Amino acid sequence: MIFASDNWAGAHPAIAERLLKESAGFAAAYGTSDLDRKVEDRFNEIFERKVAVFFVGTGTAANSLALASVARPGGVAFCHTEAHVTVDECGAPELFTGACRLVPVPGADGKIDPAALAAAIGRFPPGAVHQGRPIVVTITQATESGSIYSLDEIDRIAAMARAHHVPLHMDGARFANALVALGTTPAEMTWKRGVDILSFGATKNGCWCAEALVFMNPEAARDMPFIRKRAAQLFSKSRFIAAQFDAYLEQDRWLDLARHANAMADGLRAGIAASNSGRLGWDTHSNEVFAVLKKEAAEAATAKGTKFYDWPIPADMPGLVGPDEVLIRLVTSFATTESDVSDFIAAIKAA
Amino acid sequence: MIFASDNWAGAHPAIAERLLKESAGFAAAYGTSDLDRKVEDRFNEIFERKVAVFFVGTGTAANSLALASVARPGGVAFCHTEAHVTVDECGAPELFTGACRLVPVPGADGKIDPAALAAAIGRFPPGAVHQGRPIVVTITQATESGSIYSLDEIDRIAAMARAHHVPLHMDGARFANALVALGTTPAEMTWKRGVDILSFGATKNGCWCAEALVFMNPEAARDMPFIRKRAAQLFSKSRFIAAQFDAYLEQDRWLDLARHANAMADGLRAGIAASNSGRLGWDTHSNEVFAVLKKEAAEAATAKGTKFYDWPIPADMPGLVGPDEVLIRLVTSFATTESDVSDFIAAIKAA
Amino acid sequence: MIFASDNWAGAHPAIAERLLKESAGFAAAYGTSDLDRKVEDRFNEIFERKVAVFFVGTGTAANSLALASVARPGGVAFCHTEAHVTVDECGAPELFTGACRLVPVPGADGKIDPAALAAAIGRFPPGAVHQGRPIVVTITQATESGSIYSLDEIDRIAAMARAHHVPLHMDGARFANALVALGTTPAEMTWKRGVDILSFGATKNGCWCAEALVFMNPEAARDMPFIRKRAAQLFSKSRFIAAQFDAYLEQDRWLDLARHANAMADGLRAGIAASNSGRLGWDTHSNEVFAVLKKEAAEAATAKGTKFYDWPIPADMPGLVGPDEVLIRLVTSFATTESDVSDFIAAIKAA
Amino acid sequence: MIFASDNWAGAHPAIAERLLKESAGFAAAYGTSDLDRKVEDRFNEIFERKVAVFFVGTGTAANSLALASVARPGGVAFCHTEAHVTVDECGAPELFTGACRLVPVPGADGKIDPAALAAAIGRFPPGAVHQGRPIVVTITQATESGSIYSLDEIDRIAAMARAHHVPLHMDGARFANALVALGTTPAEMTWKRGVDILSFGATKNGCWCAEALVFMNPEAARDMPFIRKRAAQLFSKSRFIAAQFDAYLEQDRWLDLARHANAMADGLRAGIAASNSGRLGWDTHSNEVFAVLKKEAAEAATAKGTKFYDWPIPADMPGLVGPDEVLIRLVTSFATTESDVSDFIAAIKAA
Repeated sequence: MIFASDNWAGAHPAIAERLLKESAGFAAAYGTSDLDRKVEDRFNEIFERKVAVFFVGTGTAANSLALASVARPGGVAFCHTEAHVTVDECGAPELFTGACRLVPVPGADGKIDPAALAAAIGRFPPGAVHQGRPIVVTITQATESGSIYSLDEIDRIAAMARAHHVPLHMDGARFANALVALGTTPAEMTWKRGVDILSFGATKNGCWCAEALVFMNPEAARDMPFIRKRAAQLFSKSRFIAAQFDAYLEQDRWLDLARHANAMADGLRAGIAASNSGRLGWDTHSNEVFAVLKKEAAEAATAKGTKFYDWPIPADMPGLVGPDEVLIRLVTSFATTESDVSDFIAAIKAA
Repeated sequence: MIFASDNWAGAHPAIAERLLKESAGFAAAYGTSDLDRKVEDRFNEIFERKVAVFFVGTGTAANSLALASVARPGGVAFCHTEAHVTVDECGAPELFTGACRLVPVPGADGKIDPAALAAAIGRFPPGAVHQGRPIVVTITQATESGSIYSLDEIDRIAAMARAHHVPLHMDGARFANALVALGTTPAEMTWKRGVDILSFGATKNGCWCAEALVFMNPEAARDMPFIRKRAAQLFSKSRFIAAQFDAYLEQDRWLDLARHANAMADGLRAGIAASNSGRLGWDTHSNEVFAVLKKEAAEAATAKGTKFYDWPIPADMPGLVGPDEVLIRLVTSFATTESDVSDFIAAIKAA
Repeated sequence: MIFASDNWAGAHPAIAERLLKESAGFAAAYGTSDLDRKVEDRFNEIFERKVAVFFVGTGTAANSLALASVARPGGVAFCHTEAHVTVDECGAPELFTGACRLVPVPGADGKIDPAALAAAIGRFPPGAVHQGRPIVVTITQATESGSIYSLDEIDRIAAMARAHHVPLHMDGARFANALVALGTTPAEMTWKRGVDILSFGATKNGCWCAEALVFMNPEAARDMPFIRKRAAQLFSKSRFIAAQFDAYLEQDRWLDLARHANAMADGLRAGIAASNSGRLGWDTHSNEVFAVLKKEAAEAATAKGTKFYDWPIPADMPGLVGPDEVLIRLVTSFATTESDVSDFIAAIKAA
Repeated sequence: MIFASDNWAGAHPAIAERLLKESAGFAAAYGTSDLDRKVEDRFNEIFERKVAVFFVGTGTAANSLALASVARPGGVAFCHTEAHVTVDECGAPELFTGACRLVPVPGADGKIDPAALAAAIGRFPPGAVHQGRPIVVTITQATESGSIYSLDEIDRIAAMARAHHVPLHMDGARFANALVALGTTPAEMTWKRGVDILSFGATKNGCWCAEALVFMNPEAARDMPFIRKRAAQLFSKSRFIAAQFDAYLEQDRWLDLARHANAMADGLRAGIAASNSGRLGWDTHSNEVFAVLKKEAAEAATAKGTKFYDWPIPADMPGLVGPDEVLIRLVTSFATTESDVSDFIAAIKAA
């Protein structure tokens, strides 16, 4: 029972087999093959408009290069206090943007609070050279806390970005999980809301290494070929990233995989809530579950070989965890099985 | 007949199948899986010493992070005028080293001339703050010109680097091709000569995306975990790079693949030399062939669907190419077949 | 009556005349003149130990290069939420450190709260590659809020830095003002407390352009000559910075100038507190005064030609300012006169 | 007799006195004072058009920020092999441009050869992502070799830059010396020729620290306020740089000072040529003189206290210096006297 992270899973069989199938033969290198083109067209279909797509190898690369594409000297990006870009990427965004700064903005439930965002941006009046200047707002969908911005909430953030003349980026490392949880479309969750640039993650949802940077306005991606190459993210055999996306985006596979992961998380949520061994730390609807377990329940699960991470208690929830309890994070994926879920619930109940 | 570059090939079947096989199950992320460890051990065997190994996704990343690992403010790296790091990586080395500078050093046959290197380094006397300071010498084996440094030649460069107290890096994008051409061992071609850091390329020789940065002295790699993560080169499902290397380095597969590629190049060399349609531009022993063809011969090959690149005439060989001739580069790979070679030779002969 | 900032003042006559006097003749360039050496020796005296001193042109340069001297890939610096380095330097620290990150740490009164610092550093366990790694703690003395760390408070911050094996930097843009307010010595306020690197500011206190970076352990400054040159901060006629310091540090001039500025601020504090036109926003002991004035009092002062800045209400003091009031900052300097002070007090009283 | 460099001189009395005069009183900080504005207007007059002017502290800053203002990811700047930006600035241009690359272009007499420039730029076809992309051509006037581009020669370089859609920058560390040597106007030597950005140096010609970055098209300087602040080059008491320029540019003082320096160099040139102790290494018309002296003559001058630098023999003049000879550089300045010149000539003649 592996709930440590969705990136502990391997690759979905259909995707792995597509890689094998595409391994024969020759093709033009550096992203110029027919397969690269075909998959780029598939992105146009999915987003219901002509977009510019750039394949990269990691989520950190996707996010960092998204920010790099809008970087200017003295630039400041606004993100949630717990956003992956500022907490988990070892300064990669700062490096690739040429030393732009990330300003953390608080907000409950892992989401940027619009009023806090207004206050944060408000500290950068136009022309205030000492402070620097806003260049982008970035949100994460689904968030690091497992929550999901509603379409209305995205609208509010987007309106704020627009009011300050900066683009809106979405870190979609778990884009598909958010999409199926909201039951909406890629277009509705992005450009129709005002999202300009998207990190479209596929690695956590069944690929082994496939991330795409999607520019809703291709004009805005003018510098990206150079930004990507200089970032060492232009793969010579780029068509193998394309091949993964080709299988991933085929029919509704990517959505089905996300639905499965979310359903497995639903099972965990229901099982934990119904148990006497703990409770949900807070409500989530994605493939991430945060649970407050009795220590003995957590230990029992660990003894059965379950992998999960202890999680730091959020600063705004100081009384969340009792003295004999522990806060843990459980993440499901396309590879999680119903028996993984039921075995885990059984293990904590038996404690 | 694809001779455009070895990275137009796909993945070798044994490697592609290993990827498929490893796609099931779960494993610890970010380079900490058992398979990552196993392959790291394999590198120790191959290099006959304990080395530090870091998997990355592209050759540009390997080279750039090698230089980053020795970067210091005001640092200057010395490379051949035509080295990939300075000519073909869009400033990635400059970016990842925090703005170190690459000083081009001339030399015939794509190899750094030791006397020119001495002169170049000599312009940086210790403490000369305006000029900056030497931090590394980097050579390419096999070179961009298809040539191969002999062990003695590496010794001479290494002695120069040592005399100036800077480490020696080897860009081994075509490491295996050079190794089998020289008929030597990885240890002999690297640390026994004085090479401190190696970009160990596998993508061009049968993997789809597998590059490793090898530090002969693991102590010198102290900062590398942070350098790699910050460079967006720490793959969450790193074990898929490991899986490629696992199959690649199994028994002598990697050497066999390189031997095959070199043999195919030998076939091209022999066929061209024996034809009336052209001649070798200069002698090479790796999987790169540079040929001066009659224009009609080149066009005939192209008409048959052959892919290759026209090549700029080297500055030190101004009279190499006649008025009705063209200089081209042909690159073979593990995937090149004998009929590719014979068809090409037949095509140019028929012109 | 100019209270906008201490850097609206000119240069003290003794310093300006020294510049004139040193303008004749020739001297070795780039910081190697006899005068440069003499002043460096003076720093040794002042700090009661052998220190390494580097003259630079701006306070932003001093702070940024201090951080650059300890930068490592993935590095994270800890500063107060309102520190000049993170709020007022347009990303210069990020640029010069090669994209290190500044983590803001809260604390009342403009000072880092030791417990908050412990919590902030605690989020970076050793080897946690995703998060990055602590490289330095930086405090400001006197702070942006006009407060001054006591020697005990510096001890507590220094202990925390030591416990996490990172150096402690002090931004001393108003070093002299803090020093005379505490009535202590440079040695006591710095290295005897555990301060490793000091930005020693003189511009705000009577020079026109003289900042020094002081390394308490000269060994730690090994890379600084290159860091400074690369930052475009090595002045060819460096002796003119030296000349300013020479006059500034002569006998106790620098302390006298700071005492004067602080005394003028005392006058403002006393006058405001005794008036019916406003009150002190909070207590300060340096040359910065924060006052809550009735709007009509502030307007009356402005009408008399007084210059000062409105100040944002601190996040932790939401009820500080009433509906008909305004928070302002007043800064005194060596050039402030007693009549400036009394005229200002008279102006607000008359409102 | 100081001929080591023009930056060994101090400040011209008229400039030093202006600094003293402006040291009293208060003025708005960070480049917004009336004096800053007045001097900016003076630049408009001098250049016969509305220009954008940014004061900075060092020549390295001026050059680096000029390049930074046109930097783009993957950018490549073209300069002469011996240009100060690439040889003497410790990587500052690379740092401030966010890791752009400087490509050295050869050319006799310290000047870029237009044909070599065409060849160098020609290696960067549009869209060639691996190579990067041209962003600027930079020339030095007067050059590091003491030579001066004629107006026609600037035209030719400018035409090449325009043909490749990149701006032209001029490093004018010795702008005034070149100007009076050519007997032309600032407008004629810059924007009328196609120069877009100028590093306008005054430090070497009588100021102590005054450099200006001049944009012929103010629109192109849009990002400069942030670029300069982030580079730690926005001086709080900026009016003291303005004050230096104010005195420097008053009437024809700056041209008179340069004429004097050049005339002193003429004296050296004539004296050396007429002596039996050596000869001119090559012809120059600026304030730099390169002489091949008999070793004993050089030693005799040194024994008299003369300061000058030995100079490396240019790569394209291998036979320039005989076995008992030495190549030296002599630089004159506003502060050089006729007796300095005659004493030096007497010293070498006496050897």
